[in-house]
Amino acid sequence: MTLPAAADLSFDIASLHAAYAAGLSPAAVLAESFARHKAADDPAMFLYLRDLDEAQVEAAALPAFDAAAYPLWGVPFAVKDNIDVAGAPTTAACPAFAYLADEDAFVVAMLRKAGAIWIGKTNLDQFATGLVGVRSPYGVPRNAIDPLIVPGGSSSGSGVAVARGIVSFSLGTDTAGSGRVPAALNNIVGLKPTLGALSASGMVPACRTLDTISIFALTVADAHRAFRVACAYDAADAYARPIAAPPLAPVPPTLRIGVPDAATREFFGDAAQAEAFAAALDQLRGFGCEIREIDFTPLYQVAQMLYEGAWVAERMAAIEPLFRSNPEAIHPTTAKIIGGADKLSAADAFRGFYRLADLKRAAEPMLAGLDLLCVPTIPTFYSLADLEADPIGPNSRFGTYTNFVNLMDMCGIAVPTGPRSDGRPGSVTLLARAGQDGLAAALAQQIQQAAHPVLGATGKPLPVAAAPVGALAPGEAALVLVGAHMSGLPLNGDVTSRGGRFLAATTTAPDYRLFALAGGPPFRPGLLRVSTGGAALAVEVWAMPIARLGEFLLTIPAPLGLGTVRLADGSTATGFLVESAGVDGAEDITALGGWRAYLAR
Amino acid sequence: MTLPAAADLSFDIASLHAAYAAGLSPAAVLAESFARHKAADDPAMFLYLRDLDEAQVEAAALPAFDAAAYPLWGVPFAVKDNIDVAGAPTTAACPAFAYLADEDAFVVAMLRKAGAIWIGKTNLDQFATGLVGVRSPYGVPRNAIDPLIVPGGSSSGSGVAVARGIVSFSLGTDTAGSGRVPAALNNIVGLKPTLGALSASGMVPACRTLDTISIFALTVADAHRAFRVACAYDAADAYARPIAAPPLAPVPPTLRIGVPDAATREFFGDAAQAEAFAAALDQLRGFGCEIREIDFTPLYQVAQMLYEGAWVAERMAAIEPLFRSNPEAIHPTTAKIIGGADKLSAADAFRGFYRLADLKRAAEPMLAGLDLLCVPTIPTFYSLADLEADPIGPNSRFGTYTNFVNLMDMCGIAVPTGPRSDGRPGSVTLLARAGQDGLAAALAQQIQQAAHPVLGATGKPLPVAAAPVGALAPGEAALVLVGAHMSGLPLNGDVTSRGGRFLAATTTAPDYRLFALAGGPPFRPGLLRVSTGGAALAVEVWAMPIARLGEFLLTIPAPLGLGTVRLADGSTATGFLVESAGVDGAEDITALGGWRAYLAR
Repeated sequence: MTLPAAADLSFDIASLHAAYAAGLSPAAVLAESFARHKAADDPAMFLYLRDLDEAQVEAAALPAFDAAAYPLWGVPFAVKDNIDVAGAPTTAACPAFAYLADEDAFVVAMLRKAGAIWIGKTNLDQFATGLVGVRSPYGVPRNAIDPLIVPGGSSSGSGVAVARGIVSFSLGTDTAGSGRVPAALNNIVGLKPTLGALSASGMVPACRTLDTISIFALTVADAHRAFRVACAYDAADAYARPIAAPPLAPVPPTLRIGVPDAATREFFGDAAQAEAFAAALDQLRGFGCEIREIDFTPLYQVAQMLYEGAWVAERMAAIEPLFRSNPEAIHPTTAKIIGGADKLSAADAFRGFYRLADLKRAAEPMLAGLDLLCVPTIPTFYSLADLEADPIGPNSRFGTYTNFVNLMDMCGIAVPTGPRSDGRPGSVTLLARAGQDGLAAALAQQIQQAAHPVLGATGKPLPVAAAPVGALAPGEAALVLVGAHMSGLPLNGDVTSRGGRFLAATTTAPDYRLFALAGGPPFRPGLLRVSTGGAALAVEVWAMPIARLGEFLLTIPAPLGLGTVRLADGSTATGFLVESAGVDGAEDITALGGWRAYLAR
Repeated sequence: MTLPAAADLSFDIASLHAAYAAGLSPAAVLAESFARHKAADDPAMFLYLRDLDEAQVEAAALPAFDAAAYPLWGVPFAVKDNIDVAGAPTTAACPAFAYLADEDAFVVAMLRKAGAIWIGKTNLDQFATGLVGVRSPYGVPRNAIDPLIVPGGSSSGSGVAVARGIVSFSLGTDTAGSGRVPAALNNIVGLKPTLGALSASGMVPACRTLDTISIFALTVADAHRAFRVACAYDAADAYARPIAAPPLAPVPPTLRIGVPDAATREFFGDAAQAEAFAAALDQLRGFGCEIREIDFTPLYQVAQMLYEGAWVAERMAAIEPLFRSNPEAIHPTTAKIIGGADKLSAADAFRGFYRLADLKRAAEPMLAGLDLLCVPTIPTFYSLADLEADPIGPNSRFGTYTNFVNLMDMCGIAVPTGPRSDGRPGSVTLLARAGQDGLAAALAQQIQQAAHPVLGATGKPLPVAAAPVGALAPGEAALVLVGAHMSGLPLNGDVTSRGGRFLAATTTAPDYRLFALAGGPPFRPGLLRVSTGGAALAVEVWAMPIARLGEFLLTIPAPLGLGTVRLADGSTATGFLVESAGVDGAEDITALGGWRAYLAR
């Protein structure tokens, strides 16, 4: 490939890494990043811009380009200014609160270790309280798509910086929707991880029990890549949970997706948004998804508790010394919201938890049969003028489809669906159970690829993503079948009845011998690994739900069992093996190359 | 067997069911139960005594005696008066709070369906706030062992009624130790289930997030039997959890038991209690347990939060309308404690949760390598006079070893260890992780059988319990372990963390050879079936939930796998095998007879 100019790149990571592989320098990319920021002429976007020379020194010190070892090699990113970066101030958009950070937040450190280079700290609704982006004493970042509409918040600067292609990805935070609403308003992806998947060490809390760091990116693949790097258990964060972050897998063929029914689908009169959402659901049906309309009332009742219930007191707990000693240092709208905590007793807090527990329990039967929810990320758009007229109402309405999510312990990803009929960006959010971040991202990638929108406000097209390889879905294990369980053979039903799915036909590594065992029907072979004299033998690889694998194991009689089988490509998987004592006197059929050949003989 | 007289029975369920099988009538048992209550001459024990005739009508309507179908057939029980029984008042020991219950609490209904017959509602420390039993406007139930000491609380009447043999078992509740302290003071068993295992539907909450119904009985076997009947998931209780309650299994041969170290072992000067506890630990060592002294400071820090931190506000949330409208209706000590909630804001509550989360996280490494904790149930004894002199201090000290347990989400069982040097009852409590109720009960049964104390205050001896048979529960598979997964060895946590339960130590059929494999740590053996020249090798059989078996299989690296292992008794089960190609060059250690012998070499 010819060496592309940094200025021609959208800064999505696939394009960036292709260019690095072709010889482009991180220095050129960083220079372009800073140039784009300058060209944006938006002094409210960053609260702290790193010195370019310092960033260049860090880039120059990177090891040789190696995307496998350094999945974020040379990738510029921005950090919401309620997350620490060593040597930079953390303000949470409140000058009186500001402090100089001694060390990187845990997540920032993980990203930098993977080769990412931070370029600045971004503006936010003060103390991450708001979904609009106008509640900052440092001004309002300009929406990247339309300067008349709000940028969204609270991660305003992080959303805008990605949409403009200044950085490849950015960190936001998300308690009530702050990692999703700016994505919808700026035509980008917003990945809101499962609570506890990303460490909160080095993050200024909003509601510590409901906060998570989130990720904005131009593409689902990029957001998920940064998520995988950042997702590591941090024992120092008492709310951290060990969450698996496997590579993106193919979308299972039939997903059951819950969507708000007609009575609980709310767009506040925005017909274009209603139409865009309906079109997105049609697209999901086209993918083979089953769309189920459900009554969202219980979820809206949960949502109400976030600001009207006990949790506003978490925001007070986070800043109480400042709130008491220097209330005028706090943005008036923010102070009004957080001050609401003063009406709440500890007994009120517990009553809030009881009500949440009851509402969650009540919602369980409704959610039990669903793999995902799909909602509009925002119900409609609001302008700067709307917020000047009413600083609270539009903010609340922005949270219609986001406020309940963290209280329900769901993860989510907001993904562009292409322009609405009026040209404004369409966006839906997929929501999944805790730990199912990968499932939501896999379907989001399919949506983004099908919509094929331009990336953010860059004008650049979405690169075609390679179909995910390694066809396991979350919760599945690969299972190597050698004999009567293979497709079309007598015991295949033992696999398919347990949710087994065919993945591939292949051969083993050349280290095995195959024997036709005594007994039957069903007649069965035994695969035995040998130190010398082995051959490559035909096998099938299936995907099996891990929860059903034990039950399957119990159906397997001696001398067969499940161990580790090495395949032709060097990979290994769980599969059928035979005890060496079980092949005494059995016919060695290795020369036929596999069980089907033996049956055909 | 000759028909025993009801008056000669201790009312433990084994004796009772043997007598029923021999022809004794429930009518005779109920009459004896009421006669014993009358003879006790303790008007403060029950707040409501059922009409004997009504109980007799219910007993007469029981189907034919069938202990398998009705595990509590004809068993009299009492109910703490903060738990509903249809048709009886529920007072929570506060006349102004009283209401007539329309229906049985979920747990009461389960017990009655299993054949148990309730006879009355028992006194308690008002609103289950206290560990002493003296905080009730209905008077103080008399301690069954020594009338000068307090009965213990809050489940005072339930503890005393069992100790006197009036009922076979009783329901208490336990938030801070109310299901354990009365057991220690009255020489009986107190089983405090995992939070959420027993439904709280129909129970007056103390701290709804920390409460559980608990069970008092004369023997561990009886307490566990009632627990198994009562343990059923109740979707109507938002804090219910699906917890398995399999039959009592044998105790694994090597348990690692954490106990307070010298610096954090507190008896408030009671040398006899210190001596009794030390003797109990010696007995555990004699069983093969490994006793590990740990620093209990983090647990005591957790304990402090129960009354000094946010959770006292839960008690306020439970009774706030009464507290505001009619404060003089509340016991003065109780009102003083609960009134402390008025100083706590919702932000304070959240700060309490953060601190608890931090303390739990800090305690994790200390607890990770332990199977159980063993503590004195109470540090010392207090008399009625002590409590008159100081209504708060002795109560707090009673909670030394109980207050942290529910905050730490542990389950526990208090078990008599026989008389101390001064004749007062000895008691230890075994504490286990949530869901490990069965493990704690199995070891408690071993302790009670070894101590062989008289039952409660009945003067009757403990019947010899049959050793638990290692039986599989529905949904479990047997798993034969050969090496590092066996109890006390490095990978045992891979089994126990998936709900594995020890069933038996045995040997294989004499058809195997054992090899010390290359690699490690962890060092691992391989078991290979051979056609000739095999030996019987030491193995352990564990029960594993089938739904977790696949996940466990995925942790097993080559050359090991799971196949079929034949045991000494001719039975077969799923177990560890090694590929023959994997033992090339490995040391043959068959002659040692097993992996433990090799490790000990």
